[in-house]
Amino acid sequence: MSEVYAARRTRLRDCCNAGGSAAALVSRPANVRYLAGAAPRGAVLLLGETEDLLVCAGPTDDGPGQARPDEALRVHALSPHAGDPAVAAAGLAAERGTDSLAVEEHHLTVARHRAIGSAAPRLRLADLACAVEQLRVVKDEEEISCLRIGAEIADQALGELLESILVGRTERHLALELERRLVDHGADGPAFPTSVAAGPNAGRRSHRPTDRRVEEGDFLSVCLGAAYRGYRCEIGRTFVIGTTPADWQIELYDLVFAAQRAGREALRPGAACRDVDRAARQVLDSAGYAEGLPPLVGHGVGLEIDEDPQLSPAAMGKLDACVPVTVEPGVHLPGRGGVRIDDTLVVRPEADGGPELLTITTKELLAL
Amino acid sequence: MSEVYAARRTRLRDCCNAGGSAAALVSRPANVRYLAGAAPRGAVLLLGETEDLLVCAGPTDDGPGQARPDEALRVHALSPHAGDPAVAAAGLAAERGTDSLAVEEHHLTVARHRAIGSAAPRLRLADLACAVEQLRVVKDEEEISCLRIGAEIADQALGELLESILVGRTERHLALELERRLVDHGADGPAFPTSVAAGPNAGRRSHRPTDRRVEEGDFLSVCLGAAYRGYRCEIGRTFVIGTTPADWQIELYDLVFAAQRAGREALRPGAACRDVDRAARQVLDSAGYAEGLPPLVGHGVGLEIDEDPQLSPAAMGKLDACVPVTVEPGVHLPGRGGVRIDDTLVVRPEADGGPELLTITTKELLAL
Repeated sequence: MSEVYAARRTRLRDCCNAGGSAAALVSRPANVRYLAGAAPRGAVLLLGETEDLLVCAGPTDDGPGQARPDEALRVHALSPHAGDPAVAAAGLAAERGTDSLAVEEHHLTVARHRAIGSAAPRLRLADLACAVEQLRVVKDEEEISCLRIGAEIADQALGELLESILVGRTERHLALELERRLVDHGADGPAFPTSVAAGPNAGRRSHRPTDRRVEEGDFLSVCLGAAYRGYRCEIGRTFVIGTTPADWQIELYDLVFAAQRAGREALRPGAACRDVDRAARQVLDSAGYAEGLPPLVGHGVGLEIDEDPQLSPAAMGKLDACVPVTVEPGVHLPGRGGVRIDDTLVVRPEADGGPELLTITTKELLAL
Repeated sequence: MSEVYAARRTRLRDCCNAGGSAAALVSRPANVRYLAGAAPRGAVLLLGETEDLLVCAGPTDDGPGQARPDEALRVHALSPHAGDPAVAAAGLAAERGTDSLAVEEHHLTVARHRAIGSAAPRLRLADLACAVEQLRVVKDEEEISCLRIGAEIADQALGELLESILVGRTERHLALELERRLVDHGADGPAFPTSVAAGPNAGRRSHRPTDRRVEEGDFLSVCLGAAYRGYRCEIGRTFVIGTTPADWQIELYDLVFAAQRAGREALRPGAACRDVDRAARQVLDSAGYAEGLPPLVGHGVGLEIDEDPQLSPAAMGKLDACVPVTVEPGVHLPGRGGVRIDDTLVVRPEADGGPELLTITTKELLAL
């Protein structure tokens, strides 16, 4: 793996040098992990002209289950009261004779940025902007393999839940049980707080589970994901509780399913992100659900659960191959509930079989 | 409750005006919640000269189980694609003729701060610094009551775990079970990721649970907390698995217990924070454990699990009455394990009976 991290740092260095900075300070944890293999709490990565340095707030935690930093990387552990590693790293850059340092202005607070400036007053601070986030968009097969395993774990956890008795149990309990099952099957933990929404709550995006109990006739929507070696995927499904879904439930489900399929089918290298959004959105729009739709139809996933690209009406840019995204349209009818269907897929060229579906739990309307 | 929030905003307005700013923009979520009663995702609070405004990224989520904003507060919901509420709020302040706006420079990123400046170029931006955090340090009895209920919940969850069979179960499973029990007893959720550490992991601060199974003869340390109405408390205990603790275990436990007691006994209004740290630390120091001690002996708790004051060697400032803090010294011996004991207490004057212990689970060395 060490070569992978070194290659990523080389790409960033090239991009940084092209922008006129000899060195870069990476502080956003997911970016640090991407470039260094691990992001101990508070650690920053100093990408130097010749040598890179992982500056940590203390001795790195070599406990079991922790990701380890790339062994080719020098680790500089500060003493416990040395303060902010970002400030210390800027000081180290200045000592090495660096005159210009690109920092992540979208991550550093104004106060930290000022402290860096004070600690190294001769250093010219530039903006690295989202250079690392941009590198992270297209995944390598190793990364996709982590997402694939995470998706399998989420599918398993969801499948087991569906075999258990649901009526009478609360949203909170079902969510906790799903999270336990994710861990049972080898996840680092949930990729994000598991959402279980019953009855009138069903279909609400990012619904926080409550004490509402599952009842006969409910829509039940579930959204969960596993984190596996740091990579986070997402799956969402909606079910009906009881044996015969009502007509309005079947109609609404079929509509959201058609929207989600349209979104999935629009995924191809070169497709504009906003066109994927539109493909799904116009199915719902033309059925009269233009109001109250979520601001986006999907988003990238990886070391964070919500990454670039955004699949939204205002999104710029096009999809590339090997970009994993969610497609997750939904409709919520206040007081009645609703439907969300959410998959994680990898954009692949048609010659390779088109989009690769990672979350394979059935999307038939199951009556549980 | 509405008067409570209004009174808090009045105190902040006074403090802000004294600093030369007519208006303030509060963006840190716990600060927004403190002043507005709720912090919908992305929402910011604009504290105006005459009227305050909660600026939200979209319609506020009125789902069950969500905290509601103070009803006396005007809510301004942006349309889904209107962008950053902080930028919109600055624009609204400028429209209202405000000339100077204090912002939270320790929370806003450089990029957001710049976007605010561009959106309202005539607005002079000042630094609100940690004014809201300072207001939050001393709690009212309503807040302490939430912490007390959270502590009861954590005590109950821990008590039930101790009655179950522990040998053979993994750290991860025990942690998940504790979190389920917290929710069973009415918590919003865990106050922070529950830590369960067995054998050689015991006593490690913020240990992330692994697949290590609990064995006879192990030290087992557990650290958990409940969030209740947004308030977060913390309890940590260490046990021995099996019937007879070894001599080294008893000695180490007694030492950490003595350190923790010394810390608790040092809590009084007017005590210097660093003296509380020293009281506990010197017990461990003088027994030869100066190396590898955690950087602090305790910290404030409230709407966040780690707030001011910090009880550390370099801490400035003194304790006030009605400040809830943790006292949580520990020793970890690499390869062997260790002990941590952690309580949440409220600083009270001696006339009121001295520090109020919120987490009342026994601190005797239990052999389970």
